Amino acid sequence: MFTDQITRQHRLEYSTENCSVKRTVDIIGERWTVLILREAILGMTRFEDFQQVLGCASNILSTRLSKLVEHQLLERFAYREPGSRTRYEYHLTAKGRELFPVLVALARWGDRWTADPDGPPVELLHSDCGAPITLNITCTAGHGPLQLADTHATAGPGARRLAHRP
Amino acid sequence: MFTDQITRQHRLEYSTENCSVKRTVDIIGERWTVLILREAILGMTRFEDFQQVLGCASNILSTRLSKLVEHQLLERFAYREPGSRTRYEYHLTAKGRELFPVLVALARWGDRWTADPDGPPVELLHSDCGAPITLNITCTAGHGPLQLADTHATAGPGARRLAHRP
Repeated sequence: MFTDQITRQHRLEYSTENCSVKRTVDIIGERWTVLILREAILGMTRFEDFQQVLGCASNILSTRLSKLVEHQLLERFAYREPGSRTRYEYHLTAKGRELFPVLVALARWGDRWTADPDGPPVELLHSDCGAPITLNITCTAGHGPLQLADTHATAGPGARRLAHRP
Repeated sequence: MFTDQITRQHRLEYSTENCSVKRTVDIIGERWTVLILREAILGMTRFEDFQQVLGCASNILSTRLSKLVEHQLLERFAYREPGSRTRYEYHLTAKGRELFPVLVALARWGDRWTADPDGPPVELLHSDCGAPITLNITCTAGHGPLQLADTHATAGPGARRLAHRP
């Protein structure tokens, strides 16, 4: 036990409204949205391609893409091929590209706990050297890799006590 | 462009059914489920505590907890305090604890892109030295930290071509 460790009592007495996990999940925490981001990270851009790969209804896809544009994770561009009507493609912004570790973390867990005996269908490699990529938790002092048991939570600068309930 | 890089054409011609991201999202890719896992990682165990912190309906909480038990991310135990009826608490399994990087990745992105000016309400520290923890993508040859642009996707051993559509 660490003197500054968040206890059960602290957790019950402080607000979770401004939690960073909650706010992220409010933007991307929906099944289709995560799968759209997966495709965007794999380089897909066109509405029609997202629809074909994901097999989701166009109204669902359209709503999810609009939300990602609204939150500035994707940017929408019109394009037109000869003889066709104007269509749209969606490119990751810097904010969207920074979700890469979330997708890598989901993929790594899935590779380990859900893959078929023949292994996962996609591998991510470091382009310069061709070695597989991996995800590590370290501390800013350079220790690691760390597991959950090597860490503890403490109150951050934005911790807000809940109003006293009478 | 790398000769083995997954192209748009590959993406359209191969199945995503066995995708590790999809399979993970099928288990945990739901708003309340992620928030339950957040609380479990912060050390909460009791049904009543999850309900109080999350403010979600007990039937929703119950369904989500049962799914996490069914997929062996949580283990359920009965407990009984003097003078009270039997209640239940939920402990992370090894499989559940390994989702820590997913939660850290969500929190880091949220800290950076969604936090209020006063900062996030929770910080995660390395217990041995007290330094904040961070998440890095590296390759198994030791290069990094890597961004999305430093990597590319390639077909894994489980890649499956879709049946030809007539």
